[in-house]
Amino acid sequence: MNVFDIVPVKYENDKLYFLDQTKLPGEEIYYEIKNEEDVWVGINKLKVRGAPAIGVAAAYGLYISIKDYDGESLSELGENLRKVKKYLVTSRPTAVNLEWSLNRMEERFFEYCGESGLCFNKSRKELVEEGINALFVEAEKIRLEDEENCKKMGEYGLSLLSKGMGILTHCNAGTIATAKYGTSLSPIYLGHEQGYNFKIYVDETRPLLQGARLTAWELNKVGIDVTLICDNMASLVMKNGWVKAVLVGCDRMASNGDGANKIGTSGVAILAKEYNVPFYMFVPTSTIDMSTKCGDDILIEERDGDEIYKMWYEKPMAPLGIKTYNPAFDVTNHEYITAIITERGIIKPPFDVNIKKLMDGEI
Amino acid sequence: MNVFDIVPVKYENDKLYFLDQTKLPGEEIYYEIKNEEDVWVGINKLKVRGAPAIGVAAAYGLYISIKDYDGESLSELGENLRKVKKYLVTSRPTAVNLEWSLNRMEERFFEYCGESGLCFNKSRKELVEEGINALFVEAEKIRLEDEENCKKMGEYGLSLLSKGMGILTHCNAGTIATAKYGTSLSPIYLGHEQGYNFKIYVDETRPLLQGARLTAWELNKVGIDVTLICDNMASLVMKNGWVKAVLVGCDRMASNGDGANKIGTSGVAILAKEYNVPFYMFVPTSTIDMSTKCGDDILIEERDGDEIYKMWYEKPMAPLGIKTYNPAFDVTNHEYITAIITERGIIKPPFDVNIKKLMDGEI
Repeated sequence: MNVFDIVPVKYENDKLYFLDQTKLPGEEIYYEIKNEEDVWVGINKLKVRGAPAIGVAAAYGLYISIKDYDGESLSELGENLRKVKKYLVTSRPTAVNLEWSLNRMEERFFEYCGESGLCFNKSRKELVEEGINALFVEAEKIRLEDEENCKKMGEYGLSLLSKGMGILTHCNAGTIATAKYGTSLSPIYLGHEQGYNFKIYVDETRPLLQGARLTAWELNKVGIDVTLICDNMASLVMKNGWVKAVLVGCDRMASNGDGANKIGTSGVAILAKEYNVPFYMFVPTSTIDMSTKCGDDILIEERDGDEIYKMWYEKPMAPLGIKTYNPAFDVTNHEYITAIITERGIIKPPFDVNIKKLMDGEI
Repeated sequence: MNVFDIVPVKYENDKLYFLDQTKLPGEEIYYEIKNEEDVWVGINKLKVRGAPAIGVAAAYGLYISIKDYDGESLSELGENLRKVKKYLVTSRPTAVNLEWSLNRMEERFFEYCGESGLCFNKSRKELVEEGINALFVEAEKIRLEDEENCKKMGEYGLSLLSKGMGILTHCNAGTIATAKYGTSLSPIYLGHEQGYNFKIYVDETRPLLQGARLTAWELNKVGIDVTLICDNMASLVMKNGWVKAVLVGCDRMASNGDGANKIGTSGVAILAKEYNVPFYMFVPTSTIDMSTKCGDDILIEERDGDEIYKMWYEKPMAPLGIKTYNPAFDVTNHEYITAIITERGIIKPPFDVNIKKLMDGEI
């Protein structure tokens, strides 16, 4: 199977489909999204996950929710759009890309209508159709831009890797978390197409098992050599000399290069340093928050302990009611990061200086 | 509940009971062991686990299997004993304490009979009864010696800890893995009795979840403050400053201080070093193998991948047939160990020199 066949959001023959990631790896189901409720549930129930993928899903979702408007008033259509947007934005309040994508769709629509609002006087069918079409074009654009960014990150990332390399990954920053290619998995796919024969070690990534359920599935699907391990086996795998690079994604990066990512990432980074394995973080520039000075300023989301001791199990795996600590992310100190890979290029230390330069367009 | 009420092997009113650890933490069942088949299954199916606990179970198990001999021939009784021993030793072939304990029982019996074999001519009922009783006494001795060793390790360990301390543990080297008290958990119990108010962070310990299922259960049972975390959260917990000591057990230690223990231990040790947290390994001297020079000479057992992606789950958690690497242990390099705690005292670096001194009785 070709990696290009696996996408989280598919628009085909005028129909929108989401890949139901909650069913993976047991079942691969693309199910049709017909209205705003379907979009909301899909995002809220994590059927679509991964910040860029959520952005794409929301854009097409907004389009699909209003495209069958059969009135002749652009003004009314605009009201509908705002109502749907207001509703969809509540599906995952903390996902930055969700609001960003919906804002962009809204702006595009009112741009089309003209800021003067002249169109609002018109009621001709064609204008409505053109307005709807503008939304479709924008959704496509959002998707294609993300694809392009991912591909560029993949190319930059691949320049750091060599043929036959053993690589460790944590969590899932893969093709199904983005429009296509993924962030940290992008160089693996591009290398695979060029016959690199990577050997990928996948941390299962407790408690939600995104590594086991999603990354192992994605990579395995296209015939890449995958070995699944428990998170606590990374030290031995590195000691064995099997891993020559660690590739991870990033949820939010501070201006000094401290990067928040899935819980466990910081531990992997420390092990990598100890075993002299390069540690690469894949960070779209949209993920770099220049107003956050360092990792200490990033708030770590804590989630329900059920995820640890109850969620996947048939029988109780810990005493009922036991206290847990279940942080969803941790911050990897920039000192453990060998290089930051963005769609605009590779950032090397000193990160505080070089991130600013890249963001300012100076490198 | 008092920690003294939790033991893996109980002999009461002439009856032997094993705590079925495979049912923990859902059910706490002490079930009766009536014959050698029961003993074999109990050890083989991991209802009793932990090297010292297996030794104790085998000793009482041997006794219970032949105590109802109603003949009058010590020679026949001796033959029975050898047959049972030969059978029981196959229940877990790699468990050193199993054979050690059964050998000791056998030796004690034939010591009683006299090496000259004079007794074999005798058939009097009392002699048979005395022989059987010698076995019971020896089983009690094996149990009490282990208890005493654990208690001593606990006292030495406690001298390194202070009141209110946050402590991280990995896997289960607790009271149910030994005759009583445990090895690495022993100082926690002794401190608890003295009002130390420790705050214990328990790694769940994938894939077999001994931390979540057993350690969290044990400690919680007696009212110790327990917080369960996934293995990959240890880095953040240390970064938060919540952990001031790491306590772990050991399955086999080389003469230079490299120690094999449950998979993941080496990663915890590296994190501890990075965050400047003391890392203590609890090692009965019987676990120190002076003929093994360093960790590289310790063979790591690999187990079936089912444990990772199938064992505990209701639905598939990884693509079917995915390749896995499932080592049961890893070796912690002695450089990451702050001190080794034995029943004879605390060993500090340089370990190669000081382990030898302790083993030779020079310290």
